[in-house]
Amino acid sequence: MHEASTWRQRLYVIIFHTDTPAGQRFDNLLLLTILASLVVVMLDSVESVFARYGELLTAVEWAFTLLFAVEYLVRLYCSPRPLKYAFSFYGLIDLLAVLPAFLALLFPEAQYLLIVRVIRMLRIFRVLKLTPYLSQANFLLVALRSSKQKIVVFLLSISTLIVVYGTLMYVIEGPQNDFTSIPKSIYWAVVTLTTVGFGDIVPVTVLGQAVATLVMITGYSIIAVPTGIFTAELASAMRGDLLSHACPRCAKDSHEPAAAFCSRCGSALFPPGEHEADAPANSHEAAAKK
Amino acid sequence: MHEASTWRQRLYVIIFHTDTPAGQRFDNLLLLTILASLVVVMLDSVESVFARYGELLTAVEWAFTLLFAVEYLVRLYCSPRPLKYAFSFYGLIDLLAVLPAFLALLFPEAQYLLIVRVIRMLRIFRVLKLTPYLSQANFLLVALRSSKQKIVVFLLSISTLIVVYGTLMYVIEGPQNDFTSIPKSIYWAVVTLTTVGFGDIVPVTVLGQAVATLVMITGYSIIAVPTGIFTAELASAMRGDLLSHACPRCAKDSHEPAAAFCSRCGSALFPPGEHEADAPANSHEAAAKK
Amino acid sequence: MHEASTWRQRLYVIIFHTDTPAGQRFDNLLLLTILASLVVVMLDSVESVFARYGELLTAVEWAFTLLFAVEYLVRLYCSPRPLKYAFSFYGLIDLLAVLPAFLALLFPEAQYLLIVRVIRMLRIFRVLKLTPYLSQANFLLVALRSSKQKIVVFLLSISTLIVVYGTLMYVIEGPQNDFTSIPKSIYWAVVTLTTVGFGDIVPVTVLGQAVATLVMITGYSIIAVPTGIFTAELASAMRGDLLSHACPRCAKDSHEPAAAFCSRCGSALFPPGEHEADAPANSHEAAAKK
Amino acid sequence: MHEASTWRQRLYVIIFHTDTPAGQRFDNLLLLTILASLVVVMLDSVESVFARYGELLTAVEWAFTLLFAVEYLVRLYCSPRPLKYAFSFYGLIDLLAVLPAFLALLFPEAQYLLIVRVIRMLRIFRVLKLTPYLSQANFLLVALRSSKQKIVVFLLSISTLIVVYGTLMYVIEGPQNDFTSIPKSIYWAVVTLTTVGFGDIVPVTVLGQAVATLVMITGYSIIAVPTGIFTAELASAMRGDLLSHACPRCAKDSHEPAAAFCSRCGSALFPPGEHEADAPANSHEAAAKK
Repeated sequence: MHEASTWRQRLYVIIFHTDTPAGQRFDNLLLLTILASLVVVMLDSVESVFARYGELLTAVEWAFTLLFAVEYLVRLYCSPRPLKYAFSFYGLIDLLAVLPAFLALLFPEAQYLLIVRVIRMLRIFRVLKLTPYLSQANFLLVALRSSKQKIVVFLLSISTLIVVYGTLMYVIEGPQNDFTSIPKSIYWAVVTLTTVGFGDIVPVTVLGQAVATLVMITGYSIIAVPTGIFTAELASAMRGDLLSHACPRCAKDSHEPAAAFCSRCGSALFPPGEHEADAPANSHEAAAKK
Repeated sequence: MHEASTWRQRLYVIIFHTDTPAGQRFDNLLLLTILASLVVVMLDSVESVFARYGELLTAVEWAFTLLFAVEYLVRLYCSPRPLKYAFSFYGLIDLLAVLPAFLALLFPEAQYLLIVRVIRMLRIFRVLKLTPYLSQANFLLVALRSSKQKIVVFLLSISTLIVVYGTLMYVIEGPQNDFTSIPKSIYWAVVTLTTVGFGDIVPVTVLGQAVATLVMITGYSIIAVPTGIFTAELASAMRGDLLSHACPRCAKDSHEPAAAFCSRCGSALFPPGEHEADAPANSHEAAAKK
Repeated sequence: MHEASTWRQRLYVIIFHTDTPAGQRFDNLLLLTILASLVVVMLDSVESVFARYGELLTAVEWAFTLLFAVEYLVRLYCSPRPLKYAFSFYGLIDLLAVLPAFLALLFPEAQYLLIVRVIRMLRIFRVLKLTPYLSQANFLLVALRSSKQKIVVFLLSISTLIVVYGTLMYVIEGPQNDFTSIPKSIYWAVVTLTTVGFGDIVPVTVLGQAVATLVMITGYSIIAVPTGIFTAELASAMRGDLLSHACPRCAKDSHEPAAAFCSRCGSALFPPGEHEADAPANSHEAAAKK
Repeated sequence: MHEASTWRQRLYVIIFHTDTPAGQRFDNLLLLTILASLVVVMLDSVESVFARYGELLTAVEWAFTLLFAVEYLVRLYCSPRPLKYAFSFYGLIDLLAVLPAFLALLFPEAQYLLIVRVIRMLRIFRVLKLTPYLSQANFLLVALRSSKQKIVVFLLSISTLIVVYGTLMYVIEGPQNDFTSIPKSIYWAVVTLTTVGFGDIVPVTVLGQAVATLVMITGYSIIAVPTGIFTAELASAMRGDLLSHACPRCAKDSHEPAAAFCSRCGSALFPPGEHEADAPANSHEAAAKK
């Protein structure tokens, strides 16, 4: 009983902690296994490969699935709080990496859902010691979050514009020129506005080409808007904050980044008196304050 | 009579105000109805659907149209100032959401104009309590407005460039390679410069491909210009609720919104000497200084 | 003789100055004429229109050409320094707007060069009182000029990359897959890297598609570089310059934008002595105001 | 023997130094030769040219190859430290510019690898006195390097997204609509997300077009992310040769490169108290050092 508990703890450290050599070896192995299983799923979809090695691939896929299933059960077993793990982000992903294989017994197409295993690859951040990188990602997320409102407004406006443009093109070009329905015309408007331009549907009438010109120039110009929003937010996130320093007289505690005087009461933030005295006790206090 | 007036008021609150529970329910219902009517208009344009459910869809469309017509009349009836509503932005949109159906009795194509109902969806900002978002939109508009001049200059220069490139390609490639006329070549230049690249018209001669290379590199490079303009303006708009007032001593000309003293030199921004005397001799000096 | 001179002066004012009513009327008329002549040149290139109105269009074109020729001669006649005008930017453009018509007597294709008249449209800046806009354009040019070096380095690096990618694709895909020669493969690399993507030439081998993926991701990522360069320069151009104010002690005359003290000698740039003398009871009143 | 040494030195100056007239002439000639050899390699790949001038081109190519081989040997001979040159960047490039021709005797395709000669063109920076430009390039590299972390995070996230989108499209569209395998669907996802949009593979089912819409809007929106990252870094790099040193009193932590006093509070950045204690005669020495 005690031994089992020790085993569980040892397993827990190996499986959940990356900072021990054993944990690191385990994570490396896991990532390679996931990668290999992804390659197998992909190859399985290539007809010429499937025709020759189909049965082998299916067998290998099942092997990987069983491996991941065992891993999932071990994780549940050794985790000190199994339920918390099971409903965590990684817990759900680990389950999703196994389930589709069993689902595929009923619906063959479900097998490709195994590709969700790619999400498990995000563990790579942990393995490659990329956690500082994640703080950078966090940085990006802050900028994204604070630009969320502007981006929602932007996307709603664009959606309205796209519906109007799409319908207009349907009316102008009509079914005889591949604009067979309003939804399809809206699809065309998205393809054009985002400057992707597949060319599977193109305007052929002069009026249609004129409207298309308008759509393209709109898309080309407003490519600026999300960029601008995001850049401005990121720059402001990177520039950081106002100067935090209580004014000695009025106690206003946040100032312009480069302020030398309080903008409310006009007194020097770093009084020259102290300066002239060459700040005798000062430096200690400053150090203490900090 | 009095009762009718009460009814009108109650209706007014329900229909025009979102901040009461009844008003909120009404707006939610309205948005769903608009969305449903949009879906019907779109489905109506899909041939296979129309073939099977054509008559049903037409009937439903008319039902929606009558519903919106009644809503429009009720809005006119219960609004305290009907004319002001009728000529407001939303009033016109509400009318436009109904008219095309009747117009379609004469010109069948007009029916698709019903898609303008999508603009009514902008009420969603109000329903989803997105009014703070609208202040963000306003923010974007400020940036757009103050970058208007630069963007006009940019668009005029680009238009000139596009006309020149388009004609050049017409001369080089000619009608035998799909560049059938100058307007069409200009359309091609727009498609290429905006990096959309449908591929319906492509250069085939060596010289044509060389010019196309030039067009593409131009477009790829100047994609920077509107972005740069907009970003710079947005950044300045976000910093922008600063106080614009030249400091009388050091001429620092932008300050914190509530600043009374210059944060650089500590002198009063609005010197009390001038202030008390209500600036008697002052104004001359100020004028002289300026 | 004297009368002629007066005429010349009057003509000079009408033709060269936009700020008189007569000059404005002349410029408006001129722009409309240029626009009309551009439309005629464009229509002339549309086969169906040419088939029906070919002779009429040719006649109208000649009429415009003669009109512009006369205008050019009048400009030469009434300008106080004809040679300076003739070799100015607008003088050369005015000549180029006429010459191709005569050239077309020898080489019919030259007729389309009449499209250079579009450059004359730049006078629109003057007519629409857009001269303040031009100062904005000047602003953009400053940013462009100061980012010139970085952009040259960028373009040279990209060109090298494109040549390498193009040749690689030629070796991989070969003539049997439309990559018929290295120059054409380079053209494909430009089309792909700039994210235009016509689709007239596409990789079909697996290796080719892998390299194409690389090219596309390169293009998608470095779309950032010119944007970033330009935006950074524009922002720095708009933020304007350092603080120009001679330090009262050491005479260092340019400082950080928000400097309160000289960073070289540490003396206050705007000494508090002056400050106190200027406004003695200052701080109380200022507090009261708040 | 002594004469040979002089010869070697003279050759060394001509070949390796651009700042003498003879060296400049040599470099100009070299660049022209490289350019000519590039043109020959390119022409050689154009079938119609090869058919007519094939033998001539082959001869010229061999001439260039021998020329470059001789140049390489001379460089090795006259360089004071031949091994260091041989393993330097330019040394390896110079070797690579010759080898493929001999390799092509065995594998004909290898001949096109001669295009690596294009990398030798980078010497153009030196010839055109573009070395200041290179400092600009260095500038760009600094911005790129400090944005590396964020870009790695971005690319990994995008890759995950692309794999998921690609597989989804394979499941939805299937082999009958050109999405023949998961790798090919991933290729399509890259083409679409980067807004290239060749149009060689396009979704035809309604659901597929809906997902494609999502992919395109994702690509169009996140085109912002690398731009934003890079711009923010470049802007900070351009501000970036500031002195990083926390002011002992107000903690302002970035100053003008040559600052001795804090521009915000006027206190000495390197207080003379500490200074004198540390190093008595210091200030003279510091001044001398500077």
